[in-house]
Amino acid sequence: MAVENKQVLLKGYIETMPKETDMEVKVSEIMITNHNPPKGSSSILVKNLYLSCDPYMKARMQYYRRSYIPSFVPDQPIEGFGVSQVVNSDHPDFKAGEYVAGMTGWEEYTLISPNHTQQFRKIDLDNDIPLSYHLGLLGMPGFTAYVGFFEVCSPKKGENVFVSTASGAVGQLVGQLAKLHGCYVVGTAGSNDKVDLLKNKFGFDDAFNYKDEPNLVAALKRYFPQGIDIYFDNVGGEMLDAALRNMRNFGRIAACGILSLKNLSDPQSFYHLNNVIVKRLKIQGFIQSDYLHLFPTFLEHVTTLYKDGKLVYVEDIKEGLENAPSALVGIFSGKNIGKQVIRVV
Amino acid sequence: MAVENKQVLLKGYIETMPKETDMEVKVSEIMITNHNPPKGSSSILVKNLYLSCDPYMKARMQYYRRSYIPSFVPDQPIEGFGVSQVVNSDHPDFKAGEYVAGMTGWEEYTLISPNHTQQFRKIDLDNDIPLSYHLGLLGMPGFTAYVGFFEVCSPKKGENVFVSTASGAVGQLVGQLAKLHGCYVVGTAGSNDKVDLLKNKFGFDDAFNYKDEPNLVAALKRYFPQGIDIYFDNVGGEMLDAALRNMRNFGRIAACGILSLKNLSDPQSFYHLNNVIVKRLKIQGFIQSDYLHLFPTFLEHVTTLYKDGKLVYVEDIKEGLENAPSALVGIFSGKNIGKQVIRVV
Repeated sequence: MAVENKQVLLKGYIETMPKETDMEVKVSEIMITNHNPPKGSSSILVKNLYLSCDPYMKARMQYYRRSYIPSFVPDQPIEGFGVSQVVNSDHPDFKAGEYVAGMTGWEEYTLISPNHTQQFRKIDLDNDIPLSYHLGLLGMPGFTAYVGFFEVCSPKKGENVFVSTASGAVGQLVGQLAKLHGCYVVGTAGSNDKVDLLKNKFGFDDAFNYKDEPNLVAALKRYFPQGIDIYFDNVGGEMLDAALRNMRNFGRIAACGILSLKNLSDPQSFYHLNNVIVKRLKIQGFIQSDYLHLFPTFLEHVTTLYKDGKLVYVEDIKEGLENAPSALVGIFSGKNIGKQVIRVV
Repeated sequence: MAVENKQVLLKGYIETMPKETDMEVKVSEIMITNHNPPKGSSSILVKNLYLSCDPYMKARMQYYRRSYIPSFVPDQPIEGFGVSQVVNSDHPDFKAGEYVAGMTGWEEYTLISPNHTQQFRKIDLDNDIPLSYHLGLLGMPGFTAYVGFFEVCSPKKGENVFVSTASGAVGQLVGQLAKLHGCYVVGTAGSNDKVDLLKNKFGFDDAFNYKDEPNLVAALKRYFPQGIDIYFDNVGGEMLDAALRNMRNFGRIAACGILSLKNLSDPQSFYHLNNVIVKRLKIQGFIQSDYLHLFPTFLEHVTTLYKDGKLVYVEDIKEGLENAPSALVGIFSGKNIGKQVIRVV
């Protein structure tokens, strides 16, 4: 039976920031039969339920930018993390009806080839955990927060932790993990609503709207009179420079993202890089996929914390594939409040 | 008996780069008697033999620049590492006639107070080792090379190592230690004479004059077609940026100095900082004095290597305190070839 398959395609490579018009929503057809996937293909056909909008996707919309994953293919569906249900399976590890999370297409139905199914994991339905959390709290962003904080930052109880884009998919968990670890935590975000979330929902010790601060060095000095031990950096640029100036001796900076840059090759000016030597700082870049051996530990640890009521997670869910382009574009100007997810209705 | 004591004084705090006229050579008097140092003072009176010119001294000539050591005092002698002979001692650990190395004054005779003598170490006279080497190969610069390379860079045999200011007091030892460790080593310096030293005296695998390279990114790509695993950075700025672009995944950068900056607070522009994340790089600042527990190991290890003919060391010795200001000024424009030392004649 041929059914409609709504898709979000990349029209062509972009230069700097994505716009809605860089993508096209189109309806094509797909065969839903016992012969799709074909016998011997080791593939699975899935119906996508939730799709994830993540900052790293901008680099994939640009022509090969020396990123760590390949660019998207023009006129093909955008790719991203998704939570899906298996429709038909020719793969021994997956059965029709099961729920899975992994790299899928921005469309209603996707045929997942064997090399992609390797990275899929099965999800046990759990009434206490929304399926979409497997794109955030229990997915790549949550794992990024977990390994970035525990493996890269080497946190000690009582240390002072600063988090940028702190209400985002990664930051909100970094802050809560740091609090649970006994740290003093301050976050920054770009709106007063987000600052309110940080203080009153996520339990940060303090938070500020960086857009209200004419002098970031002075702002950080105010929030950290004793200095910063750990900076979890999602933005780079001017905020990183201001943090360098406010770090304590032997401080650690986890370099997780450079959201402040429109284009990764734009120059960034630093006035305080001498602090790296004077204060013996360590700046370390990391990518969560280098730590996948820790994923089961993470999943168990964070699931338990969540079920015990020690963690909360805030999502921003947009309904419908036709709204996916604006959702993706929105994360680069901070329109989302919490983890941006698309529900495929 | 009152004797002449030639001194080099700091006239006043400087703003950016030191000039000869920022210092004054003056002759004062000092009493050489059995009562100097006074009984109960726990001090020692030394005759200075060799004085060291090191880049960190620039920051001490500026008014408190948030460095890790205090500024010099105007109208007082410049301070720096020296090799000296004890004239009189009121300290139980030191006897007249002994040779010592430690922080002393730029003058013929210095009275060392007890809190400074703590950092003094005795030198056994050894015909195979010039006394001045205790300011370079076996002093602070050598120790900087040793801990920076082994403790900060975590080197592995076969890795590709890049060293800037490679013929300097620190760089020449980094390169030789890296070669002995089984690494492939390329150095850069600012003259063809220095490049010749790197290749033909210190045994670097290759070397280049950065002043001949209009495009540092392309130059490093030529010398490291497979990329850089370890960058021992003495300069910061444009060279650091070019190195970032040429690092391999999981590369390490030891941040040892920022000689490229006239003033530590001058801005530096980076185009390739995104490589820190994409390539999972670690940039770590360090100061040798945090590792002093390793000094005895270093001294034994490097002395043995030197005596076995496995290391060489090049010094640039200026004669006379009256030439000390020009020697110090010269290291910031690369006039010295090898470790800059002043012999107090």
